[in-house]
Amino acid sequence: MPTGEYSDRRWTLADLASLLHATVGAAPDFVVQRPASADSDDPHGLAFCESERYLKIAEHASVGAVILPTGSAIDGKPYLTADDPRTAFEKFLTLCKRPLPLATGIHPTAIIHPDSHIHDTAAIGAYVVVERAAVIEPGARIFPFCYVGESCLVGTGSVLYPHVVLYQDVALGQHCTMHSHATLGADGFGFSWDGNTWRKVEQIGRVTIGDNVEIGAGTTIDRATTEATTVAAGTKLDNLVHIAHNVSIGPHSALAAQAGIAGSAVLGQRVTLGGQTGIADHTVVGDDVTLAGRTATSRDLLRPGAYYGNPAMPLPEGLRVAALLAQLPRLHDRIQALETALAERGDNTG
Amino acid sequence: MPTGEYSDRRWTLADLASLLHATVGAAPDFVVQRPASADSDDPHGLAFCESERYLKIAEHASVGAVILPTGSAIDGKPYLTADDPRTAFEKFLTLCKRPLPLATGIHPTAIIHPDSHIHDTAAIGAYVVVERAAVIEPGARIFPFCYVGESCLVGTGSVLYPHVVLYQDVALGQHCTMHSHATLGADGFGFSWDGNTWRKVEQIGRVTIGDNVEIGAGTTIDRATTEATTVAAGTKLDNLVHIAHNVSIGPHSALAAQAGIAGSAVLGQRVTLGGQTGIADHTVVGDDVTLAGRTATSRDLLRPGAYYGNPAMPLPEGLRVAALLAQLPRLHDRIQALETALAERGDNTG
Amino acid sequence: MPTGEYSDRRWTLADLASLLHATVGAAPDFVVQRPASADSDDPHGLAFCESERYLKIAEHASVGAVILPTGSAIDGKPYLTADDPRTAFEKFLTLCKRPLPLATGIHPTAIIHPDSHIHDTAAIGAYVVVERAAVIEPGARIFPFCYVGESCLVGTGSVLYPHVVLYQDVALGQHCTMHSHATLGADGFGFSWDGNTWRKVEQIGRVTIGDNVEIGAGTTIDRATTEATTVAAGTKLDNLVHIAHNVSIGPHSALAAQAGIAGSAVLGQRVTLGGQTGIADHTVVGDDVTLAGRTATSRDLLRPGAYYGNPAMPLPEGLRVAALLAQLPRLHDRIQALETALAERGDNTG
Repeated sequence: MPTGEYSDRRWTLADLASLLHATVGAAPDFVVQRPASADSDDPHGLAFCESERYLKIAEHASVGAVILPTGSAIDGKPYLTADDPRTAFEKFLTLCKRPLPLATGIHPTAIIHPDSHIHDTAAIGAYVVVERAAVIEPGARIFPFCYVGESCLVGTGSVLYPHVVLYQDVALGQHCTMHSHATLGADGFGFSWDGNTWRKVEQIGRVTIGDNVEIGAGTTIDRATTEATTVAAGTKLDNLVHIAHNVSIGPHSALAAQAGIAGSAVLGQRVTLGGQTGIADHTVVGDDVTLAGRTATSRDLLRPGAYYGNPAMPLPEGLRVAALLAQLPRLHDRIQALETALAERGDNTG
Repeated sequence: MPTGEYSDRRWTLADLASLLHATVGAAPDFVVQRPASADSDDPHGLAFCESERYLKIAEHASVGAVILPTGSAIDGKPYLTADDPRTAFEKFLTLCKRPLPLATGIHPTAIIHPDSHIHDTAAIGAYVVVERAAVIEPGARIFPFCYVGESCLVGTGSVLYPHVVLYQDVALGQHCTMHSHATLGADGFGFSWDGNTWRKVEQIGRVTIGDNVEIGAGTTIDRATTEATTVAAGTKLDNLVHIAHNVSIGPHSALAAQAGIAGSAVLGQRVTLGGQTGIADHTVVGDDVTLAGRTATSRDLLRPGAYYGNPAMPLPEGLRVAALLAQLPRLHDRIQALETALAERGDNTG
Repeated sequence: MPTGEYSDRRWTLADLASLLHATVGAAPDFVVQRPASADSDDPHGLAFCESERYLKIAEHASVGAVILPTGSAIDGKPYLTADDPRTAFEKFLTLCKRPLPLATGIHPTAIIHPDSHIHDTAAIGAYVVVERAAVIEPGARIFPFCYVGESCLVGTGSVLYPHVVLYQDVALGQHCTMHSHATLGADGFGFSWDGNTWRKVEQIGRVTIGDNVEIGAGTTIDRATTEATTVAAGTKLDNLVHIAHNVSIGPHSALAAQAGIAGSAVLGQRVTLGGQTGIADHTVVGDDVTLAGRTATSRDLLRPGAYYGNPAMPLPEGLRVAALLAQLPRLHDRIQALETALAERGDNTG
């Protein structure tokens, strides 16, 4: 069974209680094998219920066991209790994580430039290419087929999953995670029209990524024209996101899949963008701004808060506009009725 | 000539008549070399005409020969007739297909974990990495630079084109096709805000793909938080599609390019999504629902039928809203005219 | 220092004056190390100022030196003057460019089919695969991990950055640039519904790319069903763009990131598409048409000019609609007020 691997670990509820800082509610010897959702039918799954609603769901499902809020109980099912069931569950997820395999040291098929600097505790997988003046810091893990270009830095503990490309002058902070097929440092989209043709504007800047940044599969972050495209510490980018040249993204932001940020846009701290959002070039999005999915803006949004729509409006207004949009045919009919009424009235009084 | 390859095969119409279950209408010895469109100027191309309109187009084009509906004829051009010209033409396409080259067996540069299971009839290309406990079934073909992670399954006859990445616990059914740069099994975008920073929620689930699924270039399908992200049998995904963690897509659906499906959304059977569509997290899209291109929904769409717009509306309504949207300036003027008329009338009667 | 590389070159203003066809305004011996923006604090950076506004910015910034329009001057800062400061600056960018490293000749780990044709002056990097009948012309540079399929052509001076995939029958003109993770020649999304299932329509056509085309990271260009998907000379595509089967894009067009062009659409010359735009299948976009970001059309746009919105409207109209959209709640209130007034008026006169 190919995914047999997935379930070969086992914990009793008693074991888990101590690992997750939880308390056994019932059946300390019950064995769970993996996390599950409350509505799962996995007899060895462990789910969590934050609310009465999920507790009811779990009661009627055949999931093996649940983590409940301290003070709660469930009939006929093994359970743990914890002050924060979600956090306990997330700890269980962490326990269950199996990192992708990669041996410390340099795989014999990796091609490493003699003038690069790879720490002894780093792991460099099969068919990796590391160019001149690149620096791989302690504990970094570079999976197969990655290309680490000239003068790139992979910070302590950072992970590049298979097939990541760093062109040149790309600096990753510590404990970053780059998912497969991410491309950092490709040329920004810079061309100037000379009357007949697009003339290339060379892109000679860098990409600078802070600590604890995670970058999704297939995401692209272009090098700056000059200076750096930057993503600050703690920011998370989902898959297939596009970050253009000279963009600056502040710390602890989160951009969902397929978001696109055009050239020289500036995003502040704790900016949250839903999926398929778009920020036009040179636009400023301030701290603590949230854009709902598919929202777009070419105007600066400096006031903290949630926005929605295209053009982006404060969320309640955006929702009201969306609702009225669906009513446009009726609004049209009402205008027509008014015109008719007024015309008739005119006839009456004429 | 680099694409000379493309045209070195030849068939007489008589040959093709038997291969395509068609009948020669004229010129059985005429030689065609490749399929073409009705308006092509390729003297050795074979096109098909389903309708009078395309027959007229072909008549005026210099395409070599055509396939017509049984009972039709064309002057001055070699032709075949078939009950279903499109199906006959598609058979010709199949004849013309040249699979990308890949030798059966394991290329000496492939790095195969000794505890993986590769069937003798499978083909593993150059610079492929296959990790522990992976299973490659009969006739599967893995092209260069693919990464098949731990405990992955590649079902019978499935094809991974160059540069596909399967992280871990990714199971593909039989006769699946994964195009280049597809990434299956990367971490879902799961983070919880702890007041200061985004804390990673480990993603320990799987990806499960049914039989006969095709997945486009650059498409990403994230692993589930727990349990599985699933794409059921017969479903086709185009390029640059994003499927988030814990999404479930039913059988025989089709998602066009750049569609994005957010976390835990559920799509039923025979769901058809146009390009650049968006489905918000936890949204349910029922069986036989079609979304036109660029449609978005965060509301469940359970009734079968076609929808359009953002927010998604039943197609006729969505088209009406789009038409009225373009008339907004005129609607605005009509409201203003009403206000003026009413004010004047008020004056008159005042 | 990992990015030390980036700054180890130096020029005096006197040197640069002759290299950039500029004139020293002040401080010919001042040393600059790299280009910078006008608001930079880089004491060895050289910026350009096209306008009074940027001159003021540079005056207050600590950027080392600036290029000004002929006839201008700046107090207390080394400077050059040039008739066209932007062009002079772009020449400086070109001077600063460091091409990614790649040795001429074939890297010993590259796997080259004996029946391919690679010019002596081409450079083939580590872990490249070149299949049968492929042609690599003089000066072409193929970076690590590229896959050049059967019967593909890479024209003179063209560059494939790491991880580019060309399936088969893909012809690139001269001096093209393909960025990482671009996929050319994957199957078009062609399936026909047979009542129960999606039947694959084999895609046996080609991809043909003209001279001087640049294609962004992660962009996908599908092979045609028959004949060719074409991108004509001088056209530039940004990252994560999708070009479907049988699309034709004319010369000197520019498509920003995440644009999507559906099957058989035809774009003319000098078409400019903003980010996240969408063109529906079989739609024709004429010469000299510009679509602002996020614009979408399923109607032909044949008249030159700028368009905006979804559906696409001439730009001024599109902007007016966007403005009125945000006013929909107020328009709704005005309609309601009219209805109330008319009802009252009716009562008065009743």
